[in-house]
Amino acid sequence: MLRQELNELLTQTGPGSPMGALFRQYWIPALLAEELPEDDCPPVRVKILSERLIAFRDSDGRYGLIDEFCAHRGASLWFGRNEEGGLRCSYHGWKYDVTGQCLEVPSEPENSNFCSNVKLTAYPLVKVGDILWTYMGDPAKRPGLPEFEFAQVPAEQTFTSKRWQECNWLQALEGGIDSSHVSWLHSGALKTDPLFKGARGNQYNLNDRKPFFEVAEADGGLFVGARRNAEDGTYYWRITPWIMPSFTMVPPRGDHPVHGHFWVPIDDQNCWVYTFDYHPIRPLTEAERQAMMDGFGVHSENIPGTYRPARNKDNDYLMDREAQRRGEHYSGIKGIAIQDASLQESMGPVVDRTKERLVAADSGIIKARQKLRKAAIALRDQGATPPGVDPAHHRVRSAAVVLPREESFLEACRDAVTATPGVPQASV
Amino acid sequence: MLRQELNELLTQTGPGSPMGALFRQYWIPALLAEELPEDDCPPVRVKILSERLIAFRDSDGRYGLIDEFCAHRGASLWFGRNEEGGLRCSYHGWKYDVTGQCLEVPSEPENSNFCSNVKLTAYPLVKVGDILWTYMGDPAKRPGLPEFEFAQVPAEQTFTSKRWQECNWLQALEGGIDSSHVSWLHSGALKTDPLFKGARGNQYNLNDRKPFFEVAEADGGLFVGARRNAEDGTYYWRITPWIMPSFTMVPPRGDHPVHGHFWVPIDDQNCWVYTFDYHPIRPLTEAERQAMMDGFGVHSENIPGTYRPARNKDNDYLMDREAQRRGEHYSGIKGIAIQDASLQESMGPVVDRTKERLVAADSGIIKARQKLRKAAIALRDQGATPPGVDPAHHRVRSAAVVLPREESFLEACRDAVTATPGVPQASV
Amino acid sequence: MLRQELNELLTQTGPGSPMGALFRQYWIPALLAEELPEDDCPPVRVKILSERLIAFRDSDGRYGLIDEFCAHRGASLWFGRNEEGGLRCSYHGWKYDVTGQCLEVPSEPENSNFCSNVKLTAYPLVKVGDILWTYMGDPAKRPGLPEFEFAQVPAEQTFTSKRWQECNWLQALEGGIDSSHVSWLHSGALKTDPLFKGARGNQYNLNDRKPFFEVAEADGGLFVGARRNAEDGTYYWRITPWIMPSFTMVPPRGDHPVHGHFWVPIDDQNCWVYTFDYHPIRPLTEAERQAMMDGFGVHSENIPGTYRPARNKDNDYLMDREAQRRGEHYSGIKGIAIQDASLQESMGPVVDRTKERLVAADSGIIKARQKLRKAAIALRDQGATPPGVDPAHHRVRSAAVVLPREESFLEACRDAVTATPGVPQASV
Repeated sequence: MLRQELNELLTQTGPGSPMGALFRQYWIPALLAEELPEDDCPPVRVKILSERLIAFRDSDGRYGLIDEFCAHRGASLWFGRNEEGGLRCSYHGWKYDVTGQCLEVPSEPENSNFCSNVKLTAYPLVKVGDILWTYMGDPAKRPGLPEFEFAQVPAEQTFTSKRWQECNWLQALEGGIDSSHVSWLHSGALKTDPLFKGARGNQYNLNDRKPFFEVAEADGGLFVGARRNAEDGTYYWRITPWIMPSFTMVPPRGDHPVHGHFWVPIDDQNCWVYTFDYHPIRPLTEAERQAMMDGFGVHSENIPGTYRPARNKDNDYLMDREAQRRGEHYSGIKGIAIQDASLQESMGPVVDRTKERLVAADSGIIKARQKLRKAAIALRDQGATPPGVDPAHHRVRSAAVVLPREESFLEACRDAVTATPGVPQASV
Repeated sequence: MLRQELNELLTQTGPGSPMGALFRQYWIPALLAEELPEDDCPPVRVKILSERLIAFRDSDGRYGLIDEFCAHRGASLWFGRNEEGGLRCSYHGWKYDVTGQCLEVPSEPENSNFCSNVKLTAYPLVKVGDILWTYMGDPAKRPGLPEFEFAQVPAEQTFTSKRWQECNWLQALEGGIDSSHVSWLHSGALKTDPLFKGARGNQYNLNDRKPFFEVAEADGGLFVGARRNAEDGTYYWRITPWIMPSFTMVPPRGDHPVHGHFWVPIDDQNCWVYTFDYHPIRPLTEAERQAMMDGFGVHSENIPGTYRPARNKDNDYLMDREAQRRGEHYSGIKGIAIQDASLQESMGPVVDRTKERLVAADSGIIKARQKLRKAAIALRDQGATPPGVDPAHHRVRSAAVVLPREESFLEACRDAVTATPGVPQASV
Repeated sequence: MLRQELNELLTQTGPGSPMGALFRQYWIPALLAEELPEDDCPPVRVKILSERLIAFRDSDGRYGLIDEFCAHRGASLWFGRNEEGGLRCSYHGWKYDVTGQCLEVPSEPENSNFCSNVKLTAYPLVKVGDILWTYMGDPAKRPGLPEFEFAQVPAEQTFTSKRWQECNWLQALEGGIDSSHVSWLHSGALKTDPLFKGARGNQYNLNDRKPFFEVAEADGGLFVGARRNAEDGTYYWRITPWIMPSFTMVPPRGDHPVHGHFWVPIDDQNCWVYTFDYHPIRPLTEAERQAMMDGFGVHSENIPGTYRPARNKDNDYLMDREAQRRGEHYSGIKGIAIQDASLQESMGPVVDRTKERLVAADSGIIKARQKLRKAAIALRDQGATPPGVDPAHHRVRSAAVVLPREESFLEACRDAVTATPGVPQASV
């Protein structure tokens, strides 16, 4: 249970809010690289942290993320022409480069330097992996680029998708660090999904539905360990790293690729979910990549030409009560991602946390909220740099291991939860 | 004309409001029995009096109406599994019975009695006739079950439908106790509707469009008498009972079944209209039942799979100006129910009663508002039980009779307005 | 840049607002005459200046514009019957004439004069040209009827259309007095549109994209002169008259018909755009009239049966990036009217003028705002009649002329900017 003012502190990320200031300390995904596929391609509207922006890629391949609206009279630059080294407003021809600098105000005299004083808000936009990342904070404090492993391995080893989720970012994130629901909500998928089925770990998930949780500090956030009974004298441990503010990885299964999410606030009632799947040491197979594109695993099948899931709030996620009855899909909703989204969205745009009733299995969620709150307040009051800003903090992995009962999960798994190039994931 | 604060008092029925408290003294329709057709069938979302609830029927046939949201983290139980004696949240497997009692929190230890302290808000849900009724007030004051005749006669004598109306409950109810509009708005339907046409009374309705109103007290509400000139020395009286808070019956015509409505607030801008048709002493004919299912009489043709009328606000009720011109449908809208709904919705979600201009023909409406106001205030200030709570108050009927001019309608009709098993309705 | 309170003053036109009071000094378009094509035809809902009204044409051809809602209980008169000299509410038969006077309250006694005291708000509705005009102010101050030339020439010389624009009236008007965007936004259309192409003036528009602006006072508003370089020693002048509050004319091209707009607030976030095209001395050709009906020139192609453009906000105006790239449509949007609408709507329902950055080319806009502000305040504080109320102020024209560089545009064009019957427009 949270007091209402704390719920607001954690969920509001617009300009001027403490949690908004926290998000603005990090590189965060702004769009998929595929959305700006070539030089001078159409600009793309981007709303992040309640700011309306426009992304474009200029004639020289430079990426820009600038204020959506022309400095002149406020027309949207989405209608603009992306050509000859800048984005030109189609109303009166004002032209901007990727830094937001106005290059030309055609109605002004040739020798005027009027436009040199016109500059739109702009944020850096950098491709790392399949994602274009932005940093919306103080340029003087701009950290090193993201070093998450999924975005560092060769292109053939990784895949990223994106979907719109119609609720606040925090209740989406909380699903991501909550390993306990897997035994329920996703129990059907563990048996049938091509990117999940066949791993030995699944049996532990299905057989012990009372996981015990231990949460350990990470440099950049937390490691949430979920322990289930395994063969005599052993535990099956699933370790979920959370790197602040909103990066999580799902523990792996067998030799399947490893996956995870990045949750990015659009505004306080919507978020983008970036979902990746990668293998640390081998290319994804054609079958794996196709399954990801088809929305299996933790990806979603989207309405063509959009990033909105085909199964969504407006169609009750195509609830199939017969499939629910048969246990094919535990909740009757198809697809792991949409199983999560449907329940998280059902809580309302911003869940009322004054009414919740947390249990021991929610200890990851409880700790994560504490860290977010402390970091936001330390930033606001002392200007303290929060965990997870340092790119070294990004080099983590999830793991799924069987350990003797007496062993501490984190001590035993130091290597397993570290992203080391050329070393495969620790997975059963 | 009402002062704005009185308009708000009468129209607002959410938790904590005086009129909401009044509604919570009564059994009111929550859903049709057909919506929960068998044990372990899909749960149904129900919003009444601005509360979001979920209705279900468990493995043993017990009905439940509980808080829509899981006590744990607020996921909607609509996604839950209705099986093995309870409704299980598909997120983490928390399970509830029809009383809202939590039966199981799987993540807790076997011997924990954590869940015994978890209980969702729940209201009784009881089938009487074709309706599942609920009582949302203090359990200690729960009254006897409804005894409205339409819900007491054998199943083959009665039929109930339901439709969504996009306005506040009170302006819908006011249409129900306003006999005066029949001569206008429904004048086309009197001649053509299979459930209306052919009765002698219709001629009185059409010939005298200046009814005189007399309103008399009933134990549970009012009898609104509308008097029209009939043959020499006689009046045609149409008597509409209103039982508090929102049950009304339309006076009958010939041997047609008798009908009426129950208006139930969804929230302050929407209501459910439950519409019944029954014959006190004989089964409905096949033709009658089919006509009701087809939306004739006071029923509506709904969009298949929903309770939203096919003719609705979004399509201007399929207004047909040619049919208006021909007088086939007086307002150009087809169907008595939708003729009413269209005008009531056109007033806005909550009509501004500070601007109205009532006349003598509105005396039923004026008296009903006074009784509602007095009952709401007496309940709030003295805890007084309002009229209509006692099931004995439900045993009323509408009537349509021709009386000598000197007779008092209520004295002459004491028997006619009492629901007596085996006795036919008083109707011309 | 405007202070926020000034932005509100200029954009808000509901009852009680200073700018609303200003608009209520003038005859303004309420609907097209074609919307009430014959006596006793269906009534039409009209929302202007945030007031909800109903327009009808009675059995004797009289036009009425009255409160949409019945004085009795607030049902919409749109559902009423327009017959026998009045509009009758279909709920209880109350009947009103075109002056809003209640003619009949059927439930009242024959000899009652109850209804003589019932009168709805009503405004005059008068056909001048193809438009039905209303005057919503003090009857004692009602000015003479509009004398705009487009509404005075014979019917075969003029054409008027109408479209809904989803933004505040002022940012729409500002587009109308801003000649500078033509060289950019409409540069594709100048070459291809059947109602624009082929005029000599187009070359000046395309060759000199740095027009110099001079703004001169008109009796009823302003003449905005935009000067571009032409052949040696000459300037190409385009003169746009603006007559208060919101009438503008586009400078002509060759012998094409002359066109312009009237912008009428629906509410503070929507407006109607009335668009006319006429020739002062000759009938429109069949080809011209067909092109106008097809949405060429400054007209729009609307969704059949409505006045909403087929290219609209909900479908991103059918943006065609390939057509943008080819320069066929400069912004990628087809049609001059929708090119304007798309950008003006993109600014948001009411553009935030505290963020704008005006330049010399916006001097027409700046002056127009000043005049509006001064007139609204003079009216509010001294009851001063604003410019443009006197019908003599309406007799203006736009012009497009080539003048020696030393000549003053207004002195040289006194005759050209005066609407004189039988004299052709001044156009190159």
